[in-house]
Amino acid sequence: MRIALGLEYDGSPFRGWQTQPAGNTVQDVLEAALAQIAGEPVAVTCAGRTDRGVHASGQVIHFDSAAERPDSAWVRGVNGFLPESIAVLWARRVPEDFHARYAARSRTYRYVLVSRGVRSALAARYAGWTHAPLDVAAMSDAARHLLGEHDFSAFRSSECQAKTPVRTLHELRVESRGERIDFVLRANAFLHHMVRNIVGTLVHVGKGARVPGWALDVLRSRDRGAAAATFGPEGLYLESVEYGSSWELPRAAPALIAVALEA
Amino acid sequence: MRIALGLEYDGSPFRGWQTQPAGNTVQDVLEAALAQIAGEPVAVTCAGRTDRGVHASGQVIHFDSAAERPDSAWVRGVNGFLPESIAVLWARRVPEDFHARYAARSRTYRYVLVSRGVRSALAARYAGWTHAPLDVAAMSDAARHLLGEHDFSAFRSSECQAKTPVRTLHELRVESRGERIDFVLRANAFLHHMVRNIVGTLVHVGKGARVPGWALDVLRSRDRGAAAATFGPEGLYLESVEYGSSWELPRAAPALIAVALEA
Repeated sequence: MRIALGLEYDGSPFRGWQTQPAGNTVQDVLEAALAQIAGEPVAVTCAGRTDRGVHASGQVIHFDSAAERPDSAWVRGVNGFLPESIAVLWARRVPEDFHARYAARSRTYRYVLVSRGVRSALAARYAGWTHAPLDVAAMSDAARHLLGEHDFSAFRSSECQAKTPVRTLHELRVESRGERIDFVLRANAFLHHMVRNIVGTLVHVGKGARVPGWALDVLRSRDRGAAAATFGPEGLYLESVEYGSSWELPRAAPALIAVALEA
Repeated sequence: MRIALGLEYDGSPFRGWQTQPAGNTVQDVLEAALAQIAGEPVAVTCAGRTDRGVHASGQVIHFDSAAERPDSAWVRGVNGFLPESIAVLWARRVPEDFHARYAARSRTYRYVLVSRGVRSALAARYAGWTHAPLDVAAMSDAARHLLGEHDFSAFRSSECQAKTPVRTLHELRVESRGERIDFVLRANAFLHHMVRNIVGTLVHVGKGARVPGWALDVLRSRDRGAAAATFGPEGLYLESVEYGSSWELPRAAPALIAVALEA
């Protein structure tokens, strides 16, 4: 049978999502814990592979197992074998044609940025940081140019293995609260480093180095060399993955975001 | 001359605030960084000693040094010698009779608690966790009984070295947002483990194990054995230290609290 799981993890201690010979990836650690409950090897497929240092508050995965276990065994039982930095949030038996990656309609990522004169100790591994004051309205203006279906080659890592650079960006919000600025992006799918490259470009505009319309120039160039530097992984969260309601997966729980600046 | 500093730190990698022969305390690491800028040994005094695993978004310290340095050297210069888990937020030259501990009028601590069915991975070292649903109104009722000047022996660790168990609790708020519950306590000073013992007692009431008036019974007993279990350090933050305005210290920056549950 096929089981889907919702996952939260702190990416800072891991070498990213995808299994590696050297181990210590989220996938390696999760598969080992699942095998303890299943009593057999388990291979998982995720909705969105996250890089080293990137977090998830709403990753979704699936796997097949002959083991009959109650949902609670796949949640609390597995959590008992996981380190504190990974937690299973929910488990559901799903039809055999459900696929965590291919059935996903869209993914939502959040980039959390601290904008203040001195770096943050508590947010060091949980938010990006910029010393310069940022113009949020200018960043929102720039963001509008990126909405819709486009060739996002200018925001794509040279290591990206996607077959096409065309993606549809449904949403790109810039939210400012005190010294914290969040960038929330929802797309059908993302290219490698696409969120971190878009954030780098918006911040470049926010600093006043470029006008908002420059974002459109960068997009149209389809040239990675035209965009600004890639932002670090520490502020990036895979917040949720959206599926059709017919799959009857739990609605994403309130997202746990690892830093908040409060008045 | 005497210098005051504002500090933020992630307590999880350290053996608490206070210097130890084995090292790796916040004080040890800070004094080593300050000595790099001062060119001489530096001994610091803090407003509130924090235990192992406890964080600070607004610790205040002072030290004396013959070294003439601009404030920026005590901030950015020192930050260059500190690990990512400690940051100096501000520096001010202060009169010789300023004392980070004795001049403080009050301290504000925040305890962040995640209340949900499964543990949180992102908050593992930044919030306490309780599986049981909590009655916030009952906890607020119980909290009212603890306000004011009292003998807080019932909430005092057996290792507490304070001369008197009498403290004045000015404020004790219970704030609920989604799956996150914050306890904010302000007092002239705190006994050892006082916040974590009070939170444990309030949560015991929140679970329905006791009625709100029980908090008053515990307080009046002056018996540590009467209170509930001490809560873990991971959810505790020294948020700010309050001084008279004549010292002209910076107002506490917006507090950086390491977890937020958002809808």
